[in-house]
Amino acid sequence: MLTSGGDAPGMNACIRSIVLTAAAHQIEVVGFSHGFNGLIEGDYKKLLPYHVQHIIHLGGTLLKSARCPAMHTEEGAKAAAITLRQMQLDALLVIGGDGSFKGALAIAQHYKGQILGLPGTIDNDVDGTDATIGYATAIDTALDAIDKIRDTADAFERIFLVELMGRHSGFIALSAGIASGAEQIICPELGVLKPGELDAVIRPIQNAQVVKGKSSYIIVMAEHCYPGGSTALAADITKAIGIECRACVLGHIQRGGSPVGADRILATKLGAYAVEQLLGGAHLMMAGEVNHQACLYPLQASGEHKKRIDPYLLRWQQQVAND
Amino acid sequence: MLTSGGDAPGMNACIRSIVLTAAAHQIEVVGFSHGFNGLIEGDYKKLLPYHVQHIIHLGGTLLKSARCPAMHTEEGAKAAAITLRQMQLDALLVIGGDGSFKGALAIAQHYKGQILGLPGTIDNDVDGTDATIGYATAIDTALDAIDKIRDTADAFERIFLVELMGRHSGFIALSAGIASGAEQIICPELGVLKPGELDAVIRPIQNAQVVKGKSSYIIVMAEHCYPGGSTALAADITKAIGIECRACVLGHIQRGGSPVGADRILATKLGAYAVEQLLGGAHLMMAGEVNHQACLYPLQASGEHKKRIDPYLLRWQQQVAND
Amino acid sequence: MLTSGGDAPGMNACIRSIVLTAAAHQIEVVGFSHGFNGLIEGDYKKLLPYHVQHIIHLGGTLLKSARCPAMHTEEGAKAAAITLRQMQLDALLVIGGDGSFKGALAIAQHYKGQILGLPGTIDNDVDGTDATIGYATAIDTALDAIDKIRDTADAFERIFLVELMGRHSGFIALSAGIASGAEQIICPELGVLKPGELDAVIRPIQNAQVVKGKSSYIIVMAEHCYPGGSTALAADITKAIGIECRACVLGHIQRGGSPVGADRILATKLGAYAVEQLLGGAHLMMAGEVNHQACLYPLQASGEHKKRIDPYLLRWQQQVAND
Amino acid sequence: MLTSGGDAPGMNACIRSIVLTAAAHQIEVVGFSHGFNGLIEGDYKKLLPYHVQHIIHLGGTLLKSARCPAMHTEEGAKAAAITLRQMQLDALLVIGGDGSFKGALAIAQHYKGQILGLPGTIDNDVDGTDATIGYATAIDTALDAIDKIRDTADAFERIFLVELMGRHSGFIALSAGIASGAEQIICPELGVLKPGELDAVIRPIQNAQVVKGKSSYIIVMAEHCYPGGSTALAADITKAIGIECRACVLGHIQRGGSPVGADRILATKLGAYAVEQLLGGAHLMMAGEVNHQACLYPLQASGEHKKRIDPYLLRWQQQVAND
Repeated sequence: MLTSGGDAPGMNACIRSIVLTAAAHQIEVVGFSHGFNGLIEGDYKKLLPYHVQHIIHLGGTLLKSARCPAMHTEEGAKAAAITLRQMQLDALLVIGGDGSFKGALAIAQHYKGQILGLPGTIDNDVDGTDATIGYATAIDTALDAIDKIRDTADAFERIFLVELMGRHSGFIALSAGIASGAEQIICPELGVLKPGELDAVIRPIQNAQVVKGKSSYIIVMAEHCYPGGSTALAADITKAIGIECRACVLGHIQRGGSPVGADRILATKLGAYAVEQLLGGAHLMMAGEVNHQACLYPLQASGEHKKRIDPYLLRWQQQVAND
Repeated sequence: MLTSGGDAPGMNACIRSIVLTAAAHQIEVVGFSHGFNGLIEGDYKKLLPYHVQHIIHLGGTLLKSARCPAMHTEEGAKAAAITLRQMQLDALLVIGGDGSFKGALAIAQHYKGQILGLPGTIDNDVDGTDATIGYATAIDTALDAIDKIRDTADAFERIFLVELMGRHSGFIALSAGIASGAEQIICPELGVLKPGELDAVIRPIQNAQVVKGKSSYIIVMAEHCYPGGSTALAADITKAIGIECRACVLGHIQRGGSPVGADRILATKLGAYAVEQLLGGAHLMMAGEVNHQACLYPLQASGEHKKRIDPYLLRWQQQVAND
Repeated sequence: MLTSGGDAPGMNACIRSIVLTAAAHQIEVVGFSHGFNGLIEGDYKKLLPYHVQHIIHLGGTLLKSARCPAMHTEEGAKAAAITLRQMQLDALLVIGGDGSFKGALAIAQHYKGQILGLPGTIDNDVDGTDATIGYATAIDTALDAIDKIRDTADAFERIFLVELMGRHSGFIALSAGIASGAEQIICPELGVLKPGELDAVIRPIQNAQVVKGKSSYIIVMAEHCYPGGSTALAADITKAIGIECRACVLGHIQRGGSPVGADRILATKLGAYAVEQLLGGAHLMMAGEVNHQACLYPLQASGEHKKRIDPYLLRWQQQVAND
Repeated sequence: MLTSGGDAPGMNACIRSIVLTAAAHQIEVVGFSHGFNGLIEGDYKKLLPYHVQHIIHLGGTLLKSARCPAMHTEEGAKAAAITLRQMQLDALLVIGGDGSFKGALAIAQHYKGQILGLPGTIDNDVDGTDATIGYATAIDTALDAIDKIRDTADAFERIFLVELMGRHSGFIALSAGIASGAEQIICPELGVLKPGELDAVIRPIQNAQVVKGKSSYIIVMAEHCYPGGSTALAADITKAIGIECRACVLGHIQRGGSPVGADRILATKLGAYAVEQLLGGAHLMMAGEVNHQACLYPLQASGEHKKRIDPYLLRWQQQVAND
């Protein structure tokens, strides 16, 4: 087992569930450190139920994570497979995002054991599961910050532009935006903004200020939606309307923190399910949850980005809240 | 519109969504105070978007809630219907649990307008929706408390018995129990315990203490699962095994607090959906969310208690975590 | 070093500071487990900076705590002294409340090394320091719960009686009561209430309900202020005024949780100061902080309960807020 | 009464206390909106106890705040004084920082009523009070964020540079740095760093990584301590040591949020004290708290920046924790 890619709250809960479930089935588990690096270098430790006592509530990951440039080469995948064979391991579990699953698929070319993935990333951009482990916590962390910013925005009757994580999807931005009552949400699904073409952003602001007398105005935006990011966009908005617009980049706060209940439960369920499915012979699959039911999904297909942000909420925000 | 029954985090977010969506459709909204009492007594106020600014994050309910003994009589329902007719209201929206929906159904006998329900209760014991508004927050509130109790349980290597709300269902107990890594969960779905027949409770404790050397042991229990509640059960466990077992009753803390993201989003979605469905002619239905999709469900059937707690997690807890 | 008595948030921060500061002075540190029990039984481990990495934010105590009935006998104190002599330890640091300090003083009868105490208890009932380690966190934990109860109290316009910890002092009750805007505070400093003589409690309630039309009423009370506790008092108030008054007992939630900044800073300061004072020859003293300055206080005198709750706030609450 | 300058958690608690205490003394209170702007423009409302019910826990300020460029001119001060005279107000209370107090002093040139200041700012850079209203909350907000960043720093074994508010003082940086167990703290009191002279910053990092094998390294820095801020410093550190150092700018999150207990208590105490001192004839003074005792301090002197960050903790961090 290893954790890879950006850390996500709930990874420890998932590790715990895998270890406890495996122990109940008399299966031995080892954890590799620092993602695929530990696998390549044979850096691991045996994991017993004792090791995972009282980690369910901790952020980060016990096993550490890391980028692993070596995995982008065939040599890396081969070296990883050699470790697995030498240690006579029957299966590999990878907790991470679709980038990590690509690494797992590369290893499968050189390794005969079973390989399963578990979706652990705050970005929720993995197909085959309604939610990824860490996503629910990231929403609440962002929300907590936006609620605080609202206090100041309200006190000063100001415009704030809050930039959230989310790579190439608007899951966090839409959810945190709806939940915070943001007046406007900017996310990749609505297209990338171009400097000089900010009408769609500015019109609702002016409408709110002039017509509705709103005391504050908060725009939630996903990263990578404007050249130069939120700092550049805030400056351009300020210039265009003559009212100061401030940017806040939440950054790495969003990855950490004690996982909320939903993430601990999902992580526990998927960890247990993955171990059971290994026993049932599953291979090259990802353990996900769809409509509250644990299920398998081809690892290969997990990165196709077919999953869509909630169209109902997106439309409501455009028609009602942005108005 | 009114809120009725026990208050639940997210009720304000729901009120806000109803008011904003109605305003976008040029519909007027009035809010009755103190649940059905306000309806009977004609105690209400008109709600404009201005009134619901910045309430999305607040616990409790702007409209107040209350029990209404009068609604258990036909006179109460008639009086409520008279108010609705006199005010020439086309529809009534009730945010509450299945008890509140019974009141709405009684009013329907004497009132020709449309009636819709919205599921607002921390207990999640309403059919026709995967989650009720307030349930996700109640889990996290309970979790936060159990995490704190774990600190002391761990420091003292003690047994704690934490009693959670949940009327006649184990939704909160199972979710908070799984999420906190509780060693044992007692909920109505597993049957009511009888004094003198505590073997099923005590055996796993002794096993954990003796065989596994666990440093703390937490039992999460739903209310109404033992005669005399957790205080009596803790005393009986202490007597039976000779190690002190302490009871903690979470009580009303579980109803309050700022709603988490999941509840704000659900409340927003259902509030908007209810208004749209009213326009589409819906009547005597509840607006719920099943498999991430907003949908209608007969109000009459919402209290049949067919919804089950997650059988997968229940089994896992019994087989793996309780072990 | 050992931690004793009820655990308090910040004990780990204090352990960390002691270990780091000792390491900087090339002093070796061992930590005894389970309070004085570990000292009597020789159950300890060496503590290096490595062991205290990233524990500053954790509730509970790494060293575990426990009651130690043996310490109430001279044999217990002698056995503890024997361990200290056999291990050739130059000094003993005890983190705990005044009960734990009594144990330390008993050991001093049989041990020639230096003995210092550090005030770690949520109750703040230790003389010689303005605040004890854990007190600030306990206030915020209680506050968080009362804020949640206020949501429900407000929604239902009800009376709630919240019972907080605090043994024989009203520090937590007064602070949490003032900070939550409680309408009434009951604490030992105002005398113990007698059944049948509840006028002083009831009059302000009636005044608030009738004259001021307050939408909710919260009474914060310290434990041990009424025969039968808050449950009995709530029942008696209900009977006396005919409006339902509900009791909430916060219980052990108050001991746990991640320490707030003030407790981590105090714990860090006192831990460092204690090590420095040991080097300076201090003996039979407690390291406290008075007026933001670390200082020593005779261990003997730390339990005299001369420290008073803030008279200004007590008066204000009686004259203005209770009114 | 008015609130001015950056908003700070606890301002509402202070407003509440002033209104309640004034009401108990039969004094009428009006609140001006948007800081001095409301005073100049005569934009105000009467404040009764009813208006301040259940605001003690809210961030931001009921009265709104704003910069007021007009107050930098004598015309502004005169216009403000005219409003005060026309409304026949006997006194003016200003809640804010030393900039706001300068405005109050300017008004005193043209107004014969009493003027008192109350220290409300997260920065704690006001003389005459140990802590300002909002400071304790800002520490805990920063701490919460750094704890989350620690999770990721730890999982990735990375260096993070967290930039906190604090204008020209290191109060927040030192407190949050100590409380988070930051490996290094950079604040104005230690001098401004110069590009190219980063030895003092880099040496401890290399020491920690190489000698101590620390799994993560967090530097907390106050704003305005490096040309280009934390983003520039992070880039320069990365270049100098070849390990990636990431910058996180906390920004406006630090101003908002529900005030912690310490801020609510301080705000309540100072608000009550200010009203009492007005009755006693106080003029051109600030109500502060020194050594747990409410006291007055010349408004004129409150901005002299004589208050020092804790020298004991500063030394300890340099000698022990940075090591």
